[in-house]
Amino acid sequence: MVWDAWGIPAGHKPLSAQIRGLLAQVFGVSGDPVARRDEGDVPLRASALTPAQRDGLVEVVGADNVSADHHDRLRHAGGKSTLDLLRRRAEGPQDAPDAIVFPADHEQVLAVLAYCAEHGIAVVPFGGGTSVVGGVDPVRGEFDTVIALDLRRIDGLTEVDPVSGTATLGAGLTGPQAEELLAAQGLSLGHFPQSFEFASIGGFAATRSSGQASAGYGRFDDMVQRLKIATPTGSLELGRAPASAAGPDLRELFVGSEGALGVITEVTLRVHPLPETTAYQAWSFPDFATGAAALRAVVQAGAAPTVLRLSDEAETGLNLARSGDIGGRAVTGCLAITTFEGSAEHVAARSAEATALLTAAGGTALGEQPAREWEHGRFAAPYMRDALLDVGVLCETLETATTWSNIAELKAKVTAALTDSLGAQGTPPLVMCHISHTYPTGASLYFTIVAKQLDDPIAQWQIAKRAVGDAIMSAGGTITHHHAVGADHRPWLPAEVGELGIRVLRAVKRELDPAGILNPGKLI
Amino acid sequence: MVWDAWGIPAGHKPLSAQIRGLLAQVFGVSGDPVARRDEGDVPLRASALTPAQRDGLVEVVGADNVSADHHDRLRHAGGKSTLDLLRRRAEGPQDAPDAIVFPADHEQVLAVLAYCAEHGIAVVPFGGGTSVVGGVDPVRGEFDTVIALDLRRIDGLTEVDPVSGTATLGAGLTGPQAEELLAAQGLSLGHFPQSFEFASIGGFAATRSSGQASAGYGRFDDMVQRLKIATPTGSLELGRAPASAAGPDLRELFVGSEGALGVITEVTLRVHPLPETTAYQAWSFPDFATGAAALRAVVQAGAAPTVLRLSDEAETGLNLARSGDIGGRAVTGCLAITTFEGSAEHVAARSAEATALLTAAGGTALGEQPAREWEHGRFAAPYMRDALLDVGVLCETLETATTWSNIAELKAKVTAALTDSLGAQGTPPLVMCHISHTYPTGASLYFTIVAKQLDDPIAQWQIAKRAVGDAIMSAGGTITHHHAVGADHRPWLPAEVGELGIRVLRAVKRELDPAGILNPGKLI
Repeated sequence: MVWDAWGIPAGHKPLSAQIRGLLAQVFGVSGDPVARRDEGDVPLRASALTPAQRDGLVEVVGADNVSADHHDRLRHAGGKSTLDLLRRRAEGPQDAPDAIVFPADHEQVLAVLAYCAEHGIAVVPFGGGTSVVGGVDPVRGEFDTVIALDLRRIDGLTEVDPVSGTATLGAGLTGPQAEELLAAQGLSLGHFPQSFEFASIGGFAATRSSGQASAGYGRFDDMVQRLKIATPTGSLELGRAPASAAGPDLRELFVGSEGALGVITEVTLRVHPLPETTAYQAWSFPDFATGAAALRAVVQAGAAPTVLRLSDEAETGLNLARSGDIGGRAVTGCLAITTFEGSAEHVAARSAEATALLTAAGGTALGEQPAREWEHGRFAAPYMRDALLDVGVLCETLETATTWSNIAELKAKVTAALTDSLGAQGTPPLVMCHISHTYPTGASLYFTIVAKQLDDPIAQWQIAKRAVGDAIMSAGGTITHHHAVGADHRPWLPAEVGELGIRVLRAVKRELDPAGILNPGKLI
Repeated sequence: MVWDAWGIPAGHKPLSAQIRGLLAQVFGVSGDPVARRDEGDVPLRASALTPAQRDGLVEVVGADNVSADHHDRLRHAGGKSTLDLLRRRAEGPQDAPDAIVFPADHEQVLAVLAYCAEHGIAVVPFGGGTSVVGGVDPVRGEFDTVIALDLRRIDGLTEVDPVSGTATLGAGLTGPQAEELLAAQGLSLGHFPQSFEFASIGGFAATRSSGQASAGYGRFDDMVQRLKIATPTGSLELGRAPASAAGPDLRELFVGSEGALGVITEVTLRVHPLPETTAYQAWSFPDFATGAAALRAVVQAGAAPTVLRLSDEAETGLNLARSGDIGGRAVTGCLAITTFEGSAEHVAARSAEATALLTAAGGTALGEQPAREWEHGRFAAPYMRDALLDVGVLCETLETATTWSNIAELKAKVTAALTDSLGAQGTPPLVMCHISHTYPTGASLYFTIVAKQLDDPIAQWQIAKRAVGDAIMSAGGTITHHHAVGADHRPWLPAEVGELGIRVLRAVKRELDPAGILNPGKLI
């Protein structure tokens, strides 16, 4: 990925005249992008890695796999939250890890952790670097030196069991690499979060990622069968069977552990045959409440499509402004997307059941095209954020989840907190929302916020983030449905799991990482 | 429940002439039951509860709710494994908790735990007392005194959210009590393990129970939305949303914690409307491998019925011997049962999809009747075990799970270990097996073992259990799919989660239960 924005250079496109017009009208910004810095000109904090430390790490992974060069350090300087991107765009020196270490396998990860624990070096496990919660910030904690442990070389498909539908994947594989290896065997994982193109298998597990096909294939944590984990204290291999009653499920301690309890090096996942058929169907609902009740009816009946999502009025309107007049007619209300994957018979049966339920709940079928368009553009939104940031517009996302009965209230309170906290700063926002992950008992809410930037957009967003985090907790939501805790959501974790829950997590960390080298400042 | 056998007196029936004939033929036993002891005549170890301890506990829960009487102690003397029942039937004094304490609510549980931690009293959390793995044995550990903490008074339905499909239930409710309270609201939990009639909501959670409708409604751990837990260190309330990425899922530490990490006092569960329709369909497969592949096809296609189970040739044959010539024709091969619940449309669509898949996989439809007969008798097997024990026949069950590709090998190795270890003792067993819980990646295997008792049937079974536990682990199974660890499966937990996994569990226990009073000798 490029150092100061999302993705690859080819993904970055200037804003359309239509959007520039909209921004001028709503926020009064000109739409002329600021110049970006050339990465060679960016001053970096000097590496604190001592020659002895370098020698020690080289002994484990080889000289080619320890890097303290400018290019590598800059690319491991943190994740891709809006705050991260604003910090990269700011003048002045950038912080970065003192070195990047690229281990080849589980044993090398173990050895690196042992070395770092002995020599007091903080370790930030690094997958795709797509964290939007400060999960890979180069925090030193109590140590002088911090390394990023980049897992990209652990990239094998080491075991496939087509009968059971499982595959064992290296933690460093990106989404597309994993799907390509699986497709060669006629299989697919079906995990497509917005970060899919860059994020890694280990990262998906460590952050409890959830993809856009979660209605059909489940969250990433649902897919995990086995985990191999390296810690400063030794290795863990967890998950002996599809289900077990052999005590607490320790996998669930490491799924979501965000590199603070150990380094996930290998994941065995539930996979499925590449689908024979995919059916697409878009829907319109008169309003968000009606649409949400329709999604609920479908998922509670057990008729869930593979993809099931609903945009609110604001998001529906703005997406249409971006994509043109979809399907040749103006869509008002709220757009919903469904897709169905599987055998032709399975798709036909499920689609018929869902169609009947969505129609009965007040939906109007819009045909295939809006659903195909959504799928085509589904990984593009982060590029749009960069284009907005470049023209002085703040753009950020956040997400939560709650029960169906609490969805409307949580949505209203989050929207109010954003509107109030940004409005009070003189920058009233546009707030858009969608439901993208559904469960029998509730759903996620994903918010996109756009506002005019102030002179200090970092402080501007931090004020809003504090207000909205508090609003989420007081309205009964979870502080994060699939972005994880990282550094940014840490203030709310005690409210999420209680002070005693935090003590339990600390007790586990003390046992596995007594020196406290693993990802300081994240999670707990 | 009666003190020395399963269930209620009315459930106990003498063996039929047909079964007595079979037993005489196969094992050479006469079929005349031994006399049982009158409970008043059973000598009990004297209660070690001191007057001061009694006063301390009475202060928390009131005088009516601390009992050291013979009747109560005998009924809390342990669970219902075959070893438990053989020990009850043995001559000599019985061990039992020194007192039973019946707290009214979460706060009283907290206070009892605080008192016991301070005064060095071991605490065995007690739900329905149906453990078959020694999970509620009155083990004192390093303490002089042990109490059973019977949760039956925590029996409320404290919150119902019909929109989200959730209900909050007291840990002490039995299965039928919970279903009755829910049915009054038009709801059902759908959790029907063989222990359903006596086991409790808290026990289901603490042991990762799985019911016979798990294909449709999931395992109990899948149903858990929120948990309220009392520990000697304080309370935990876990689970804020249907799904979350807020770090490790700490619920999964307490689901399956078997009273060793805390006492679950309240559980919020996913529930569903009482089904409009239930469809029944039984199937015959020529052999177990064909039947297993058929079940796999159904569950991997996402067409899972509510109930989906398959008996092997031996179990099919013996069940038919018991029930007569089902459906008016002799069934050879392997019997499978499916049921479908939901709206009429949902049932019709699912049933059609499953029927097509099962037929294509070599199944022959047998109509409704065998499926209805199975449902009618599905809680009766433990009574049959008592009748067998009474005539000098050993009868026990055990269960495991593995991936689909490993099912045949695991089944063969478990059967061989049972046959060899009991055969070597001169008591070759009948071994029956079924699949009762299916997942996309694998399934459970549930074994029923019947053999002639030796003079010391406890030692006889312990030899077999050791052999079969080792066989399960070496063949890649889990030591328990839904019976839990208790005391009986503890020897295999290090192989299941690794020595480092055990250290993690101990670290959590030290944090929450520093005095080590909670359920000594169980789990870890």
